[in-house]
Amino acid sequence: MEVQIAVAKVNKYASSESGDTLEAVERPNGGLSLVLADGQTSGHGAKAVSMMVVRKVVSLLAEGVRDGAAARAASDALFTEKKGKVISTLNIASVDLRSGTIVLTRNNPVPIFICRGDQTDCLMDESVPLGTSRDVRPVITEMEIETGLFIVISTDGLNHAGERRGQAMDVCEVIRSLLDDQDPAPQELADELLAYAVRLDDNRPADDISVLVLKVIPRVGDDARRMMIRLPISA
Amino acid sequence: MEVQIAVAKVNKYASSESGDTLEAVERPNGGLSLVLADGQTSGHGAKAVSMMVVRKVVSLLAEGVRDGAAARAASDALFTEKKGKVISTLNIASVDLRSGTIVLTRNNPVPIFICRGDQTDCLMDESVPLGTSRDVRPVITEMEIETGLFIVISTDGLNHAGERRGQAMDVCEVIRSLLDDQDPAPQELADELLAYAVRLDDNRPADDISVLVLKVIPRVGDDARRMMIRLPISA
Repeated sequence: MEVQIAVAKVNKYASSESGDTLEAVERPNGGLSLVLADGQTSGHGAKAVSMMVVRKVVSLLAEGVRDGAAARAASDALFTEKKGKVISTLNIASVDLRSGTIVLTRNNPVPIFICRGDQTDCLMDESVPLGTSRDVRPVITEMEIETGLFIVISTDGLNHAGERRGQAMDVCEVIRSLLDDQDPAPQELADELLAYAVRLDDNRPADDISVLVLKVIPRVGDDARRMMIRLPISA
Repeated sequence: MEVQIAVAKVNKYASSESGDTLEAVERPNGGLSLVLADGQTSGHGAKAVSMMVVRKVVSLLAEGVRDGAAARAASDALFTEKKGKVISTLNIASVDLRSGTIVLTRNNPVPIFICRGDQTDCLMDESVPLGTSRDVRPVITEMEIETGLFIVISTDGLNHAGERRGQAMDVCEVIRSLLDDQDPAPQELADELLAYAVRLDDNRPADDISVLVLKVIPRVGDDARRMMIRLPISA
């Protein structure tokens, strides 16, 4: 099998910094984790908060700390530093090669979309952001790595797209319709979701938006691991 | 403009872990850095060393520490922990949006290939790995971000490919010939270089091999940042 992960990420309109931070880290016992945080508000302050959360989680994961413990530690650190006045959402998507599972850790009210075989689910269990109180617990979902698995994780900018004109995006419905028509590559799906949201906001995103798509496909190529980054810059 | 970065990475034959570690980190003042380390020998011990080096460098860069200082700090930490008995190479490729430059930091005898306009260079200045002694200094090369820039960074597995049968790969020549024929996308070039090396080793790589290609192209798409990861897994 091959696990493919794609991310597309755009800033709030006229904002030079995204309050969303995403990083990937290798797991010391095999596999990798993607860590996505969305700091409260937008711009520089939000960026500092989401970077602090991601750094904390990434460094713990790199030491072999379990995902849930890393999320709780980041929450306690944020609560201690900001006294409960600043919060951040957090999603961790881990490909754990030791257990042969995908582990999804969520401190984010925004649902996660999961498609396995014919079954599509939107995980909507209540989930609170980091930093809101002491002892914040993440919602953890674990599943076998199997061909056909499709997971979509996003920050709330995606779900709130279109609200300004009273037409908020029903993310799960849009994903279902995109998957009905075709079998998109992860980057295609991430790009289409992002483009859909940006159109709903009249090409001026009302918030930072990040979309992460994970897909498990049958093994096609060689044994090489690959990564590709595209960074548009002005001027 | 758009900066595109592609990585392709393969383990030594019959080795379940790569001694090479590569991670990307956002720079707090804008842009991002790719950090690539190759720990001495191969397998689990080498992995632990390269992960330690990369973690150290990444966490310092995330705090805003300059690339050269981060490399020196990682070298001192490795020297202190291993008493000079274990070394690691290090390459940092940074897209620094504050200065508008690409900064290449190198503690690695393996040359870096740079193509700007009609000029192609192989940077071969002497450069020692981390952990060899106190006060190891990196070789730092800085250049404007400009369209047409092409940079190739690799671990020594690439340059030593083919040595087993007395036919070591001339990496700079191979890159020149690949660029003469075409204008490859970064992932294509990384894949072709890796495939070339693996063929020289009779499909049984004698060492871990990592190839990183950075290319600056004219702006083609939207403002979104993108990342794509492909992780083949057995079974």
